[in-house]
Amino acid sequence: MTGLGDIAAVGADLRRGGFSRHGYDRAELELREWFTAEAGRRGLDVECDGNGNLWAWWGAPGDGAVITGSHLDSVPGGGAFDGPLGVVSALEAVDVLRAKGFTPGKPFAVVVFAEEEGGRFGVACLGSRLLTGAITPEAALRLSDSDGVTLAEAMRAAGLDPARVGPDQRALRRIGTFVELHVEQGRGLVDLGALVGVARSILAHGRWRVTVTGEGNHAGATLMVDRRDPMVAAAQVVLAARRAGSAVEGARATVGRLVPNPGGTNVIPSSVDLWLDARADDDARTRAVVAEITAAAQAAAADEGCAVTVTEESYGDTVVFDAALRDSVAGVLGGVPALPTGAGHDAGILAAHVPTAMLFVRNPTGISHAPAEFAEPDDCAAGTRALADVLEELAR
Amino acid sequence: MTGLGDIAAVGADLRRGGFSRHGYDRAELELREWFTAEAGRRGLDVECDGNGNLWAWWGAPGDGAVITGSHLDSVPGGGAFDGPLGVVSALEAVDVLRAKGFTPGKPFAVVVFAEEEGGRFGVACLGSRLLTGAITPEAALRLSDSDGVTLAEAMRAAGLDPARVGPDQRALRRIGTFVELHVEQGRGLVDLGALVGVARSILAHGRWRVTVTGEGNHAGATLMVDRRDPMVAAAQVVLAARRAGSAVEGARATVGRLVPNPGGTNVIPSSVDLWLDARADDDARTRAVVAEITAAAQAAAADEGCAVTVTEESYGDTVVFDAALRDSVAGVLGGVPALPTGAGHDAGILAAHVPTAMLFVRNPTGISHAPAEFAEPDDCAAGTRALADVLEELAR
Repeated sequence: MTGLGDIAAVGADLRRGGFSRHGYDRAELELREWFTAEAGRRGLDVECDGNGNLWAWWGAPGDGAVITGSHLDSVPGGGAFDGPLGVVSALEAVDVLRAKGFTPGKPFAVVVFAEEEGGRFGVACLGSRLLTGAITPEAALRLSDSDGVTLAEAMRAAGLDPARVGPDQRALRRIGTFVELHVEQGRGLVDLGALVGVARSILAHGRWRVTVTGEGNHAGATLMVDRRDPMVAAAQVVLAARRAGSAVEGARATVGRLVPNPGGTNVIPSSVDLWLDARADDDARTRAVVAEITAAAQAAAADEGCAVTVTEESYGDTVVFDAALRDSVAGVLGGVPALPTGAGHDAGILAAHVPTAMLFVRNPTGISHAPAEFAEPDDCAAGTRALADVLEELAR
Repeated sequence: MTGLGDIAAVGADLRRGGFSRHGYDRAELELREWFTAEAGRRGLDVECDGNGNLWAWWGAPGDGAVITGSHLDSVPGGGAFDGPLGVVSALEAVDVLRAKGFTPGKPFAVVVFAEEEGGRFGVACLGSRLLTGAITPEAALRLSDSDGVTLAEAMRAAGLDPARVGPDQRALRRIGTFVELHVEQGRGLVDLGALVGVARSILAHGRWRVTVTGEGNHAGATLMVDRRDPMVAAAQVVLAARRAGSAVEGARATVGRLVPNPGGTNVIPSSVDLWLDARADDDARTRAVVAEITAAAQAAAADEGCAVTVTEESYGDTVVFDAALRDSVAGVLGGVPALPTGAGHDAGILAAHVPTAMLFVRNPTGISHAPAEFAEPDDCAAGTRALADVLEELAR
C-alpha cells in the first residue's frame, strides 16, 4: 500500500493520536489534492460534483458505470485505514487491471465521497446523502462545525459553490454498480480464518443530540441541595445508553462525545450536550433503544430540576445489500464469507438506489475508529487483488 | 460602576454566554491595558511583578502597605462581577477618598492578581500562589492550556520574563494588609437583609484530575460485551461526586469539565479526562469526600476493564480570616455580618502570610461563575463606599 504510506503524515493528530481529517479541513483538502494528482498520474480525468464528491474517470464518463472507491476523511483521532484503504485499493486495482491489459467495457470511475464520518458537520455520509437526496441541501448547508463554520462556508472556502449542493440525478444515473472496499471493523474474518469477505447488511443506525439544561453556578459556593446540575443528568444518560444497548440483542448504544457548557472546573455547567449513537438489527429495535434512553434522560433531568431535549440528527434503516451482486462478488472470489456490519458506509446510502457491494479486508484486532486500527500489508494487497478481480468481472 | 460598563465588551463569549477572559489571553491582556490606563488617569504608578500581578501605587511604594484589589480574569463563560467588581471598586474607592481630601498615611496600592480562576492553566490563584511560594515556579511554568501552550510561553508572548516567576519576598513585605471586595457567591446577605458583609472563612478546597483509560473503538461495530468504555466509568465518577458531596455536611463536589478523547459521536473514547472540584469545612472532610470518589472511580474503572488515575492539581486547607482585622472592618461598617464562603480567592492565599479581609456585596440570586451573576448598581456603589471607609481607616 504505497498510497497509504504517501499520506501517512497528512492530518496526523498529535494530541489525540491517529488522524483527524474532516470534510474540507486542511488535511482533507490536502488528501483531495493527493487523490487528484494520483488519478492524473494514471490518466484518469477527475471531476468534482456539486456535493463535493470526486470522480476519477478511466475513459469517458457515462451512465451505468462501474464505480469503486470510499472516502478520505476520518473520525477525530481515527485510524489510517477506514476510508483511505478503499481509495488506495481502487487506484491500485486500476494499475492491476492495466498491467493485465484489461480495458473496461463500461464506463468506470474511482470515487471519493465527502465527509463520510460526519466528524466535522455531524451527519455521516454527507456526500452520498446529498447526492441521493437523503438530506436536503437546506438542512445540510446550515450544519455547522464546533467553531460555528457552516458547511456552506466551508465549501466556499474550498472553492466550491454551495448553490450546486443537492440531489444529483446525473451522478446517480452514472452509477451502474458501486463496490466499496473497506477494512473490517470487527473480528469476523479473523474468526473465520478468511482474508477477505463481502458485506451482507448494515445495522439500522442514527445519531441523536441530547441537550440537558440546568443552572450554571459556582462549584464552591452552591450547596449540593441547591443545584440543578445538568452533568449529573447527563451521566445518567450515559449509563442508560449502556443499559439499553445491552438489553436488546445485537444493539449498540454509545456516548462518545459530551460537551459541558461552559466547561470550567469550578463551574456547575448551565447545560451539557451529548450525542447518542444507537444501532440495532432493525428499525423497531433501534427505536426501542432510543426510546428507553430518552425516557431515562427525561426522568434523570426531572429529578435534577433540569430540562432535556432529544433531537434526531441522522437516521438510516437497516441496509441489506443486493443479494445477486453479493453472491456474484463472493463467487468471483471463490466463495468468500458474507458478514453483517455495525458500521455505516456510503455504500449503505447508495444501496437504496443502485446495486452496491462491499469487500472487507481482515482486521487482526477488530479495532477501528482508533489509532490502533490496522490491516497487514499482505492482507491489503490481497484486498486489492480481490477488488481488481471483482471490477474486471463487473466492467467486462 | 462606570468601570464595569467600560469593559463590558471585552472577552464577551458569544458561544457560552457571559465572558471568557483567561490569564494572558487577548481579553485579559486588553483588561490589563484598561487597568493600566485607568490607574494612569488617576496618577497611580503601575508596576508588574515577576508573577504577572499588577500594582498601581498611590504615592511611593513601600513595606506594610494597605493593598486592595482583585482579578480581571474569569471562568469560561463567567459573569461580569467576579473579579472586575473588586478592581473597579478599588479604583473608585481611591476617587472617593481623594474627593474627601484624604491622603494615605501608609503606602497604598490597587492590585490585579493574575489567573485567579485558573480558567486557562488549571491552577486557581496562580499569581498569589506564585508570589507566596504556594506553588513552585517549575511546576507553574510547565502548566499548559488546552492548546498545549505553557504558562512560560504565554507569559513570554505577553512580554513578561518567565525567569522572574517565583516567590517574591519584596512584594510580600509590601503587603501590610490586603482587603478584597467581591460580589457574594451565594444568598447569605440577601437572606440576612444586608447590603455588605465581611468574610469569616473559606472552605478547604482543591482540584483533582481524573483520567480513565479504556479502549477506543468503533461505536457501531463493537459489541456491547466487548467494550472497555471509559465514558461509562466517567459517568459513574460524576454520580459518585454527587453522592459523596451530599453525604458530608457542608461539602461540595462538582464535575464541571469532562473531555472524552477523541470525542467523536461514532467512536468509543480511548480515554476520558474529568476534573473534580471538592470542598468541605476542613481538611479531613475534604479528603474523605475525595477518597470516596476515588474509590468509586477505581471500582467503576475495574468493572469496565479500564484504568484510572486521580491526580491532585491544587489544594488549599480551610482559611479563617484574621479575626482582629475582620472585627475591625465590620465595626467600621457599623457591625455588618461575617459570612463563610465556599469560593476560593487570592485573599485566601495571602491570609497565610498577612492580615487579610474580604468585603462581600449582595448578590440577589446568589448565582456566580455564570452569565446570570449580578449585583444591583446601587449595591455596588454601597460596596465602593464601604471599601473606601475601610481603606481610610486602615491607611490613616
